[in-house]
Amino acid sequence: MKSHFQAVALIGKYKSLEIAEPLLKLADFLVSMGLDVVVDNLTAEHLASNPYPVLALDEMAGKVDLAIVLGGDGTLLNVARMLAPFDIPLVGVNQGRLGFLTDISIDSMQRTIAGMLRGNFVTEKRMLLNASILRGERHIFDSLAFNDVVIHRGNNSSMLEFEVRIDGEYLYNQRADGLIVSTPTGSTAYALSAGGPILHPALEVIALVPVAPHTLSNRPIVLKSESKLDILMHRADEARVRFDGHTHFDLHCNDKVTITRYFKPVRLLHPEGHSYYHTLREKLLWNQTP
Amino acid sequence: MKSHFQAVALIGKYKSLEIAEPLLKLADFLVSMGLDVVVDNLTAEHLASNPYPVLALDEMAGKVDLAIVLGGDGTLLNVARMLAPFDIPLVGVNQGRLGFLTDISIDSMQRTIAGMLRGNFVTEKRMLLNASILRGERHIFDSLAFNDVVIHRGNNSSMLEFEVRIDGEYLYNQRADGLIVSTPTGSTAYALSAGGPILHPALEVIALVPVAPHTLSNRPIVLKSESKLDILMHRADEARVRFDGHTHFDLHCNDKVTITRYFKPVRLLHPEGHSYYHTLREKLLWNQTP
Amino acid sequence: MKSHFQAVALIGKYKSLEIAEPLLKLADFLVSMGLDVVVDNLTAEHLASNPYPVLALDEMAGKVDLAIVLGGDGTLLNVARMLAPFDIPLVGVNQGRLGFLTDISIDSMQRTIAGMLRGNFVTEKRMLLNASILRGERHIFDSLAFNDVVIHRGNNSSMLEFEVRIDGEYLYNQRADGLIVSTPTGSTAYALSAGGPILHPALEVIALVPVAPHTLSNRPIVLKSESKLDILMHRADEARVRFDGHTHFDLHCNDKVTITRYFKPVRLLHPEGHSYYHTLREKLLWNQTP
Amino acid sequence: MKSHFQAVALIGKYKSLEIAEPLLKLADFLVSMGLDVVVDNLTAEHLASNPYPVLALDEMAGKVDLAIVLGGDGTLLNVARMLAPFDIPLVGVNQGRLGFLTDISIDSMQRTIAGMLRGNFVTEKRMLLNASILRGERHIFDSLAFNDVVIHRGNNSSMLEFEVRIDGEYLYNQRADGLIVSTPTGSTAYALSAGGPILHPALEVIALVPVAPHTLSNRPIVLKSESKLDILMHRADEARVRFDGHTHFDLHCNDKVTITRYFKPVRLLHPEGHSYYHTLREKLLWNQTP
Repeated sequence: MKSHFQAVALIGKYKSLEIAEPLLKLADFLVSMGLDVVVDNLTAEHLASNPYPVLALDEMAGKVDLAIVLGGDGTLLNVARMLAPFDIPLVGVNQGRLGFLTDISIDSMQRTIAGMLRGNFVTEKRMLLNASILRGERHIFDSLAFNDVVIHRGNNSSMLEFEVRIDGEYLYNQRADGLIVSTPTGSTAYALSAGGPILHPALEVIALVPVAPHTLSNRPIVLKSESKLDILMHRADEARVRFDGHTHFDLHCNDKVTITRYFKPVRLLHPEGHSYYHTLREKLLWNQTP
Repeated sequence: MKSHFQAVALIGKYKSLEIAEPLLKLADFLVSMGLDVVVDNLTAEHLASNPYPVLALDEMAGKVDLAIVLGGDGTLLNVARMLAPFDIPLVGVNQGRLGFLTDISIDSMQRTIAGMLRGNFVTEKRMLLNASILRGERHIFDSLAFNDVVIHRGNNSSMLEFEVRIDGEYLYNQRADGLIVSTPTGSTAYALSAGGPILHPALEVIALVPVAPHTLSNRPIVLKSESKLDILMHRADEARVRFDGHTHFDLHCNDKVTITRYFKPVRLLHPEGHSYYHTLREKLLWNQTP
Repeated sequence: MKSHFQAVALIGKYKSLEIAEPLLKLADFLVSMGLDVVVDNLTAEHLASNPYPVLALDEMAGKVDLAIVLGGDGTLLNVARMLAPFDIPLVGVNQGRLGFLTDISIDSMQRTIAGMLRGNFVTEKRMLLNASILRGERHIFDSLAFNDVVIHRGNNSSMLEFEVRIDGEYLYNQRADGLIVSTPTGSTAYALSAGGPILHPALEVIALVPVAPHTLSNRPIVLKSESKLDILMHRADEARVRFDGHTHFDLHCNDKVTITRYFKPVRLLHPEGHSYYHTLREKLLWNQTP
Repeated sequence: MKSHFQAVALIGKYKSLEIAEPLLKLADFLVSMGLDVVVDNLTAEHLASNPYPVLALDEMAGKVDLAIVLGGDGTLLNVARMLAPFDIPLVGVNQGRLGFLTDISIDSMQRTIAGMLRGNFVTEKRMLLNASILRGERHIFDSLAFNDVVIHRGNNSSMLEFEVRIDGEYLYNQRADGLIVSTPTGSTAYALSAGGPILHPALEVIALVPVAPHTLSNRPIVLKSESKLDILMHRADEARVRFDGHTHFDLHCNDKVTITRYFKPVRLLHPEGHSYYHTLREKLLWNQTP
């Protein structure tokens, strides 16, 4: 039977030595299925011997029609952000602990992925955010985020002060430890610890979740994904903006952070029968199935 | 200049005597603009002398192309639920305290409404919920809700126990005081007191907000409006389901409450320049415009 | 070796048939240790054959110097409230699931209790609340509470409105689903679900925890145990006050509920090595010991 | 009539120029009442001409029997921490905005303080915290705190990981943005923004309030003031401990922060009729007196 995919990229957790063996085993298996395998260049550095072609993530466009990520949610988050412009669907394999994004266990991956190659998968589209920073008239930085864009006061002893505008309209001034601008994917990450709601991953919405806001009546707000958010820093000593908790940029007073939905979604492939609600229950220690 | 509307229904706060005078003054004004005015039958009962035709809300379909409600958010909520099937747009006038839905002040209503009749308005579509209750095989009750469908334990000393399914898929079993199923409109009502997020009113989503849940890791969840929710009552002594805090129905153990989006939205008309965020700041005592 | 106690009352979970066997086994064991055993009269009703003297709880004063409760936290709560005036220390045995109050497992109770009789126990004093209700000039009801006194709106569609005074001084007017007045013992029960803090059980403090308060800046407040609380019902249709979720009383508008610390504490005996923090971690699903 | 105090220190907001005039006016007034006035040395630097003796805060022991602080809560907090060892009671005057600690308005201070000098005051004792930091075997830093000791991750992208022990007993391991260890005084400051309870200022308790904890069932905990807290840093890149948001110290992995109650309380003097609950209502925007 024909596979849905022909060229598959394998990407392992960054600098993880123990991922080498299962990754090469999976590669051999995919080749035995008649597929072409390439390995991400950073992953290849930690493989003792690698018989497969090597590509950087940003060279994969057009050369790969599926990326399989072995690691945890953090690894998949980073790969998704890098591959987002290229329309390459992603499959996530976790190394032991179930992830929100990496829902295939490494122990059963061969069988599960074989099924997916035969077409037994569901595709889920998830939105990303696009953030850019303006200092005066100059556009000085931009980044994608799959989970969240977080503005935070760092170790400064006084709270941040910032102003939020939505589609140009004034929302509020706020003093707080920080502000989390979250996708539905990010709603079960840092935003959840800060009191934000769980957003079903198929939604196209953006959540604003304040961290320790000084105004006690402040609450998380969920907005349309078409909204353009501007965050103006009124007090920003040592403030920093973080993207997926991975990259960051230091903010100055009067900087403006503008956030919109990125125009392309990430496509995640799940094995048939995948249940988001099951993952929620497991990860959040809710009750068991009745 | 031609008005956008021809036949206008006036509806006052239920059993309010002080609404009579401004309502009749508004009626005279509308007639002076060349419009036809009808008065809701319950409102008419409290007008000393009423020269205008009288209709019940459910007789207004096809006879009225605008309804102006004088009262508070509660009044507009009830009218909206009743008129929802008839595609009649609504304008809300408050008697003094700014409402989320009734955003025109009674003091300036004549001037504001004159402008709206000339076309200076924006239309906002808001979703409603449709709830139905199954006892065994029998469909025993149903109701619309504009704010929320709330399942609550009442005064019973033990928590409710219920099971939630989304599109047939198991979400969780929960013990709690109650569960609020809220529209975006309802997100700034009871759901907000119970810890739910603010949902922008233009969103098409449904929020599940538990009230005092026994499982401490439980959190509000925001779902697609296309979702079909089933709530199965496992323990329901003295439990009750309330619709917009207005009508209610007593639940038995094993009853199933099914909630979907109602197929028609409510259309609210706002004067041009209306700002939802301004209302949020005022109602929630956030900071003033900078 | 001499036991610290001579006459022990055994009290089982109300109407529980499965408690009979372990309870009689424990009785035999205590007699074999040279102790006198009496059985609570309600418990005795469900024992097929009971060779031991039977006493009602309110007849135990002076006749018993230790009460062992077999059941769950709810059972111990009720017994503690009943025995509070009599200075009889309590030991709690759970039927399988660890309780906050019933910390001895039924499987190991014989060995554990033997140790305690030899003096290997720690005594913990816990405060109770004393509530009384005034209607006009008439004192119409009063009750003790070990966990909490809860004022709740029941199934009424509108929120309660009440005024709180502390030592005669005005605290606030509030609209809410309810108000929980909690002891430290009650802080891990209903108050925790409603957002209250955990209060170490040795504290002598009273917590006020609002349930779904309309004022978003409202927060739980912790007060000195010497405080006298007055709660005046301004709007109370269908309102009810509950004591430990066990007994209750229906409130009218203008009723006043007065709450003070009960002058005698409950004495709980724990086996040596008992750890409150361990119980917290287990019950709240926190992390494991490192 | 004899004053209760003889030698009064005046202390103004640090580096505030506008405090000079009212401070000197108050000084003249106190001298006219027959009192001796000294001025804090840092305050004196910003007085154009100062006829009064000047002392540093740490020279005031035994020479001053009252300190009047003009500024905001932050100023009083810092002075209280410095004077805590010396048993000098404090009076707080605010420059316009009511403070939790500075409850006398500058406009009415002369009349109010005159009354207090005649004995019309109430004394409130408030507890402080004493924190010390151990690195390996070395005691490397210590500080008092009147509001809170806050351990925070700063701008690091990963959460802190730390272990908390109470009186040597293991409480939990936690991943979080931070941990606030708060006095009752601090309970209406940062701890409140992070979801902590309000603690009546007369209580002798310590609150542990996590900031954005990863474990969703984590909750604020209130402990006896006699408790000894040890916080062991398991993951502490860029972590910092802050004292009243004023001084700070950078933490390393394996550092241990030990917190106990400071053995001397601060004495705050309030004018008769002072109401803590009134301040709460005003500061937290609760309802008005009925």
